[in-house]
Amino acid sequence: MNGAESLVRTLVAGGVDVCFANPGTSEMHFVAALDRVEGMRCVLALFEGVVSGAADGYARMADKPAATLLHLGPGLGNALANLHNARKAAVPIVNIVGEHATYHIANDPPLGADIEGIARPVSAWVRTSRDAKSVAADGAAAIAAARKSPGQVATLILPADTAWNEGSGIAALPPIAAPAKIDDAAVHAAATALRAGGKDAMLMLTGIALREHGLMLAGKIAAATGCRILAQWSNVRMQRGAGRVPIFRLPYPIDAALNTLKDVKHLVLCGARAPIAFFAYPDKPSILTPEGCDIVTLARLEQDLIDALERLVDALGARNAQARVQQLDIPAAPSGAITLDKIAAALGAHLPEGAVVIDESVTSGRGFAPLTAGCRPHDWITNMGGSIGFSMPVAVGAAIAAPERKVVCLSGDGSALYTPQALWTMARENLDVTVVIFANRSYAILKGELAQVGAGNPGRKAMDMLTLDRPDPDWRHIAKGLGVEATRATDMDQFSAQFAAAMTTRGPRLIELLM
Amino acid sequence: MNGAESLVRTLVAGGVDVCFANPGTSEMHFVAALDRVEGMRCVLALFEGVVSGAADGYARMADKPAATLLHLGPGLGNALANLHNARKAAVPIVNIVGEHATYHIANDPPLGADIEGIARPVSAWVRTSRDAKSVAADGAAAIAAARKSPGQVATLILPADTAWNEGSGIAALPPIAAPAKIDDAAVHAAATALRAGGKDAMLMLTGIALREHGLMLAGKIAAATGCRILAQWSNVRMQRGAGRVPIFRLPYPIDAALNTLKDVKHLVLCGARAPIAFFAYPDKPSILTPEGCDIVTLARLEQDLIDALERLVDALGARNAQARVQQLDIPAAPSGAITLDKIAAALGAHLPEGAVVIDESVTSGRGFAPLTAGCRPHDWITNMGGSIGFSMPVAVGAAIAAPERKVVCLSGDGSALYTPQALWTMARENLDVTVVIFANRSYAILKGELAQVGAGNPGRKAMDMLTLDRPDPDWRHIAKGLGVEATRATDMDQFSAQFAAAMTTRGPRLIELLM
Repeated sequence: MNGAESLVRTLVAGGVDVCFANPGTSEMHFVAALDRVEGMRCVLALFEGVVSGAADGYARMADKPAATLLHLGPGLGNALANLHNARKAAVPIVNIVGEHATYHIANDPPLGADIEGIARPVSAWVRTSRDAKSVAADGAAAIAAARKSPGQVATLILPADTAWNEGSGIAALPPIAAPAKIDDAAVHAAATALRAGGKDAMLMLTGIALREHGLMLAGKIAAATGCRILAQWSNVRMQRGAGRVPIFRLPYPIDAALNTLKDVKHLVLCGARAPIAFFAYPDKPSILTPEGCDIVTLARLEQDLIDALERLVDALGARNAQARVQQLDIPAAPSGAITLDKIAAALGAHLPEGAVVIDESVTSGRGFAPLTAGCRPHDWITNMGGSIGFSMPVAVGAAIAAPERKVVCLSGDGSALYTPQALWTMARENLDVTVVIFANRSYAILKGELAQVGAGNPGRKAMDMLTLDRPDPDWRHIAKGLGVEATRATDMDQFSAQFAAAMTTRGPRLIELLM
Repeated sequence: MNGAESLVRTLVAGGVDVCFANPGTSEMHFVAALDRVEGMRCVLALFEGVVSGAADGYARMADKPAATLLHLGPGLGNALANLHNARKAAVPIVNIVGEHATYHIANDPPLGADIEGIARPVSAWVRTSRDAKSVAADGAAAIAAARKSPGQVATLILPADTAWNEGSGIAALPPIAAPAKIDDAAVHAAATALRAGGKDAMLMLTGIALREHGLMLAGKIAAATGCRILAQWSNVRMQRGAGRVPIFRLPYPIDAALNTLKDVKHLVLCGARAPIAFFAYPDKPSILTPEGCDIVTLARLEQDLIDALERLVDALGARNAQARVQQLDIPAAPSGAITLDKIAAALGAHLPEGAVVIDESVTSGRGFAPLTAGCRPHDWITNMGGSIGFSMPVAVGAAIAAPERKVVCLSGDGSALYTPQALWTMARENLDVTVVIFANRSYAILKGELAQVGAGNPGRKAMDMLTLDRPDPDWRHIAKGLGVEATRATDMDQFSAQFAAAMTTRGPRLIELLM
């Protein structure tokens, strides 16, 4: 059994049974091993940003890592933006990068590059396999590194001769530690802050705390103490809708974020980071909490957030408190001219139970939360690294991980144009993904940002850098060219009808909503 | 004048007057400055791989650097693959990357990343501006670094506050050294080797030596000594066609490359590297020259290659030797079923004088050289870094640099699918580019490589990783969706007619040739 096959078998034995791939020559033995090893599903993407985003989306739904397979330094480079997003989200990924044969590296061939150097800024763990006998053990170590709580990008670099020489067979997975429990002092400090704060206190959550059970615990705490609960602006996956404790996200625009937090005197963090500005703006603060706000960390993201909430519930005597639970409240399907609220209502009206929403509607989607809060229970995934071109690749991975659920990908047109190749993988794998493109033909977010940073009124040349018209991208054709059926909606009646149809039909499709 | 404007004015004063951009919030002051500064042409791309590839193509035609404008670490990440190609080609680029405001970096915001770490593997020079007063001088230093012979990627990182705070005004360009002259010993050694070798000697060229004048000198040397002349497999730009000294490239497939070099006893390098395998293969050598071959470096790439050839001509008494010059020999336009030779003939028949060919026809184009050798004089650009997704972005930059010339981009479908967004910029800027997509619906190169590396006969799962069918990408729709007119050719009559029409019509268009 060669090194490549040893690695593939080790991955499968270690629970990593999906590989998103864009391979090249140096990865051919890995690819060839796929035919000899049962249990590894390998999904081809036409561009590595789709590979890394899909691995992110997969892990968010499966709660375990997928593998990637990337070709040398440039392939890793193409994957970098979505690996950045995964790193910021603390999502587990076993990131496998081919390398030239060990003895060929010194020749500095055309594709030679400092792969470890490229990997380090996006990886918590980086290792280059030394020889074929080490590959399986390195693979097992990569799985363990990826699964270290809360999750990490682990990059394993595989010189070609470590793949083709005789390997060691399957390596056993090292023990993977459960998330650490918080200490009693943290529980006590959080309980004290929330009791003291009452309605001026806030419990801010992210990570696993935003799943149904964590939210129920947070709801009890809110009921018992009067505190507000809030999610980070972006989160790995948040469970919402009828039957769950409702929670909103900190807004993105800095003034709205400051306003949301302005009365908070005690902030208790459960996995969340103390809120900071996405960007710095001249004359605006970088720290979003008001001066003098008492910030208490109940639990860090890598700790056991559910245990922390359970113990906080008990410390507050809130076990029997009645959390506010969202009632089913489905908006009427809207008609007429397009508005952002009506889009939210259309989503809320038609999202099926168990839908997974990947939200990269950078500007258009900022107001979606209220009108979708009462719809059928669903999951909401957002980008924690801010690098666009995120949602369609993540939708690919989410759909592979959760084939029985409808995946809805909401994307601005500017964002979607970074990684349109994801559509092809949706078509090839017949994934149950509906992509909604908000086609405003501009980097709309930048028009606001230009003002926020005080760069003045843009002239023609500056505006040219913010607009995507001339020519208008036509998503009906882009999608068709990549194998996905697409329609265009120019009013709410069309959008509602097309979206409703998509929600009740399996398979990939795209709706371009002209804004 | 703020830092951003100081930088833009410094760039223009330093001869950098084209900027390929995909900006974000942290670059808004740079964008705003474009309206206040005359003389900077800013070209928007929808994806950063287009930005970096365009900067590469621009520099290859303009013989000077363009600037890029990229958004933070992930934007740089998306640009990395084509920056890798530029680095390997020693092409000058002033690579500008926005960064968070200096005081905001410590907050580790979502888009925060180790930008210097990401930049280093693809940059010869990396600097982060410290403050707004330094930005202009840093920009001037970046230009000088980019223009250091033979050319380098210089990455300047620009924290947002260095852009918006008060700057210093224009900074003067540091002196830029001319390429160093070789010493007499190198001339003597090369002359000795070529005299001794006769027909068993080879002069291998790249870089500026492959322009018309360098080739004429090489042709005289060949005529006087009987040596063979050969270009590297890939080169920044090679001038070919009628009236020039004909030269071929070392083949890519390892067996063909070994065969080409098997009788070489004396190899003289003019800018070229001693030939090595693109990839290592089990049981094949990494070094392509035969054992015992005497390798003499006439000049390294960064040295003055033309001066070196002139002096070698004189040392060999070859000043009046009659170089073999290519006669005009235009093939007949072919018809009937598609073959690779007929495609070459169609190109040769219709390429107009002064055409610039960007060749990323990874498998389909390997045999194009003989049948295009005698066509009208043209330039031929190839990829020196091996990272695909190269040619359409490079075509964008080449067309901006040489608006009076027809740019012909030859790409495999697999390659083109990495950076299809380049089509949109071609449409927006109405660039005179004809893209030919060789649609074999597979990573055809990998089918050969799988055998070369001894990975055996691929089964279904392995073959799935090498094929782009299910669904077949349809380039007519992809191009139309991005604003470029496209046609499909399924036989040589259609291809000849469509290609001929494209050669006589200005503006972007795409031909999908079904293989």
